[in-house]
Amino acid sequence: MKFRRSGRLVDLTNYLLTHPHVLVPLTFFSERYQSAKSSISEDLTIIKQTFEQQGIGTLQTVPGAAGGVKYIPKVKRDEAEEFVKSLGESLIDSERILPGGYLYLTDILGKPSVLTKAGKIFASAFSDREIDVVMTVATKGIPLAYAVASYLDVPTVVVRKDNKVTEGSTVSINYVSGSSNRIQTMSLAKRSLQTGSHVLIIDDFMKAGGTINGMINLLDEFNAHVAGIGVLVEAQGVKERLVDEYMSLLTLSEIDMKEKKVEIQNGNFQRFFAENE
Amino acid sequence: MKFRRSGRLVDLTNYLLTHPHVLVPLTFFSERYQSAKSSISEDLTIIKQTFEQQGIGTLQTVPGAAGGVKYIPKVKRDEAEEFVKSLGESLIDSERILPGGYLYLTDILGKPSVLTKAGKIFASAFSDREIDVVMTVATKGIPLAYAVASYLDVPTVVVRKDNKVTEGSTVSINYVSGSSNRIQTMSLAKRSLQTGSHVLIIDDFMKAGGTINGMINLLDEFNAHVAGIGVLVEAQGVKERLVDEYMSLLTLSEIDMKEKKVEIQNGNFQRFFAENE
Repeated sequence: MKFRRSGRLVDLTNYLLTHPHVLVPLTFFSERYQSAKSSISEDLTIIKQTFEQQGIGTLQTVPGAAGGVKYIPKVKRDEAEEFVKSLGESLIDSERILPGGYLYLTDILGKPSVLTKAGKIFASAFSDREIDVVMTVATKGIPLAYAVASYLDVPTVVVRKDNKVTEGSTVSINYVSGSSNRIQTMSLAKRSLQTGSHVLIIDDFMKAGGTINGMINLLDEFNAHVAGIGVLVEAQGVKERLVDEYMSLLTLSEIDMKEKKVEIQNGNFQRFFAENE
Repeated sequence: MKFRRSGRLVDLTNYLLTHPHVLVPLTFFSERYQSAKSSISEDLTIIKQTFEQQGIGTLQTVPGAAGGVKYIPKVKRDEAEEFVKSLGESLIDSERILPGGYLYLTDILGKPSVLTKAGKIFASAFSDREIDVVMTVATKGIPLAYAVASYLDVPTVVVRKDNKVTEGSTVSINYVSGSSNRIQTMSLAKRSLQTGSHVLIIDDFMKAGGTINGMINLLDEFNAHVAGIGVLVEAQGVKERLVDEYMSLLTLSEIDMKEKKVEIQNGNFQRFFAENE
């Protein structure tokens, strides 16, 4: 099928957006559109300019016979800041206070508009790292983890806190939930994670970090490596932070049960974005 | 910022793809690109043609003052057939046989390439129905449900099979798991679903349909309506099918534990696609 430039630009944009972090040879496109490689190169220059100008991401070109073009989803720092600000504002609501100093986030964690943007922010911040898989723990963080994973084009792996794992032999570890100081168990099917994988840990909420520390210990059992840690909301004011290096979008600085007041601040995400981005 | 047509086409394509089922007024685009509405209309004609030709979806134009343009993600019937065929082939593997006549699907259910395509197929098949929310039950079907929901631009709601719901008052129902004949409980936080919602139920696997029937009964408690039911894989050969109208991509016709053989066929999804689509 022969394409004009305008049609090529539309289809190329769709193709790249739906294949993030995949290196596509130029020959693939020149065959797809029955067009000269020089025309495809011109198309890609236009797309790269527009993607960068509009904060959609960037195109990386790899020269040579094994080369091609790769779309890297990127969020600009000011766009991330704006999103986090409006997300934070939607959380300052006394109706969201739950027993035990938790915040009701379930509605947020099911909204595509929030998940795709938050997912893209994490994928953008960790885009330079080697990541084979995104890991989370059941249940609430799963859609967020999947949103991040889809921007990185890697699978999602879900650790379970129950023993209902029906996928053959499992690896289980005990961990201390930092907030309750109780010993709990988490499990992962052996076949769901390859030895030596580079793993990005994503969760919706981190209080003292016990759950995330549990995941890190579980990764040890698979000789896997932590490529990064991202949480949507972290709680502030816990004496001993169990997890050192992580990225958070928001910090829950206070839940006043008596006054029914919630205080939210920026997390540390800005550190993960260069000044000029 | 002034745009040339080529840059507009790239940014418009990205905007529409990331805002499915959202009616966008043409004035929004003419202000965004500082271009005449007639130019935007020409752009949209090019995009609509390319989307339809390439099986990306379609653009619906709503005329009048409150009008605009809406991107509807659509999958062509032959593309759906091709995807289901290759998915089925990847499942015919004796290593996937699990105790109890189940099939190991966890890897599939974490792969973005599978989830986005399967999600788009369900969203395409149900695109004409009124849908306010996608519902699933924890845990394995959550990424699939979210993938469907993101193509429909509606929230995801997750029913839990345990009592760990920490989101205030909940509605619980008992249901009979069709395969085990045991009575089980499922719960949903009251505030997570609005009365009268139109709900698309999505799950990864349906054996006798007990879990999905449970969700239907739960919806009754919220005076909510079933807008549709979609499952990735259904098991064949169950005497009494508890759920009548549903769409499945694949049918697991036999698991021979002794011979270590798996038989997979097409589900009924073709019924949901018109001949000429």
